[in-house]
Amino acid sequence: MRPALHIVKIGGKVVDEPALLTPMLHAFISDPRLKILVHGGGKGATQLAEKLGVPTQMVNGRRITDEATLDIALMVYAGLFNKKLVSALQAGGCNALGLSGADGNLILAHKRPAGEIDYGWVGDISRIDAAGINRCLEAGFTPVFCAITHDGQGNLLNTNADTIAAQIAQAMAPNYDVELSFFFEKNGVLMDTNNDQSLIPILNHSAYQRLAAEHIIHTGMLPKLENAFAAAQSGVHLVRVCGPDTFASGMGTEIGG
Amino acid sequence: MRPALHIVKIGGKVVDEPALLTPMLHAFISDPRLKILVHGGGKGATQLAEKLGVPTQMVNGRRITDEATLDIALMVYAGLFNKKLVSALQAGGCNALGLSGADGNLILAHKRPAGEIDYGWVGDISRIDAAGINRCLEAGFTPVFCAITHDGQGNLLNTNADTIAAQIAQAMAPNYDVELSFFFEKNGVLMDTNNDQSLIPILNHSAYQRLAAEHIIHTGMLPKLENAFAAAQSGVHLVRVCGPDTFASGMGTEIGG
Repeated sequence: MRPALHIVKIGGKVVDEPALLTPMLHAFISDPRLKILVHGGGKGATQLAEKLGVPTQMVNGRRITDEATLDIALMVYAGLFNKKLVSALQAGGCNALGLSGADGNLILAHKRPAGEIDYGWVGDISRIDAAGINRCLEAGFTPVFCAITHDGQGNLLNTNADTIAAQIAQAMAPNYDVELSFFFEKNGVLMDTNNDQSLIPILNHSAYQRLAAEHIIHTGMLPKLENAFAAAQSGVHLVRVCGPDTFASGMGTEIGG
Repeated sequence: MRPALHIVKIGGKVVDEPALLTPMLHAFISDPRLKILVHGGGKGATQLAEKLGVPTQMVNGRRITDEATLDIALMVYAGLFNKKLVSALQAGGCNALGLSGADGNLILAHKRPAGEIDYGWVGDISRIDAAGINRCLEAGFTPVFCAITHDGQGNLLNTNADTIAAQIAQAMAPNYDVELSFFFEKNGVLMDTNNDQSLIPILNHSAYQRLAAEHIIHTGMLPKLENAFAAAQSGVHLVRVCGPDTFASGMGTEIGG
């Protein structure tokens, strides 16, 4: 039997909000499985950019990353948030190891080619080093990845945290019984984002496509679910979207089929 | 025979100056021994603090670290500089792994008690996990430590990088033939800081005490040399202070006795 591995991605709003983050980290620490945490950056980067007078440009929910913005992402994601998460996990007895994709060359990416939009220093993943991540797990560490990768040529790259989580899950699936949980401020995918009771317990791909076409599922949820379905269709045992009341109990919206 | 391990600490002015940093990193990458890099923060933290309107308070060359200043140290040391160093080393084929003392619980510290001066979130080292660092080396990684530690209770702590380097060297000495190099902008300890030709090739402790009493060695060099002598007197095979023209050749000022 393959060992169980729980990969949890926490969203930006969770990182910013102790009332969401603290109980989530407690549940994460209590989980006896091997674990990996992946975190986004939240509003911290935007707030720091404002203070420093660096304009924030978003296109389709994605940050245009010029050199000053990349430095801000490095500071907030790889420095401030990553180390605060590691320190909080360590205080709970979880032997966390903070990582970017450059560390140990664990996530190699390439700069997204400039098309109609030039995203700047944004990276798309080329290769996850599953063996390297495995060595970290075997050494007793719980990897905590921030949303930074590199190109192996000395350039650091801003990379979507949902995609990092999904691609790590896919890379680890041949050797582990992987559960991938996208933890955010809602308890799962909702039919009506203003109604917490409208949670969809299981979402298959045809239902997803229908709901997306009807704009019931929209905006930021679309790329998250694209990543979730990619993982579910690539050998990841269980993929779910969950939140404060559904994370610890293994509930939320199961993504499949 | 014990394996050779080269621990290199690079000073703040080096981190800020590509003309010093780039050739130093090339020499570090070319060194066939097992290696650990430890880096200070340079002016980056002071510059970011200025931009953010956070006052910088220095006492005896040490930074008073209130909460806003700690966040800045996390951003600049653990984020910006650590990841840029890791990325540059990776580009040269060195499998660097960026770390704070919180990561893997490798450096446990305690908050310095407030005496006449309250240094704030500054940590003094309680324990180096030599076995954990060893596991990183055995996994094929080159650890790159920034000057941040933690107390195991969820608090991150600003910690002197010279001290981190010296204490890692001491902790690794029972199992490795350790060379500890303090790399800075001068080529070694100088009799006259304005005369590069006045390099002291070997400095023993009685000569150091005499030169310190005569104020020939002074200010920032004193704590660096205290750390260097502590390492030399605790089983570290070779301790030296070196710079641009003396690092690669193994020269500089040898600290001993």
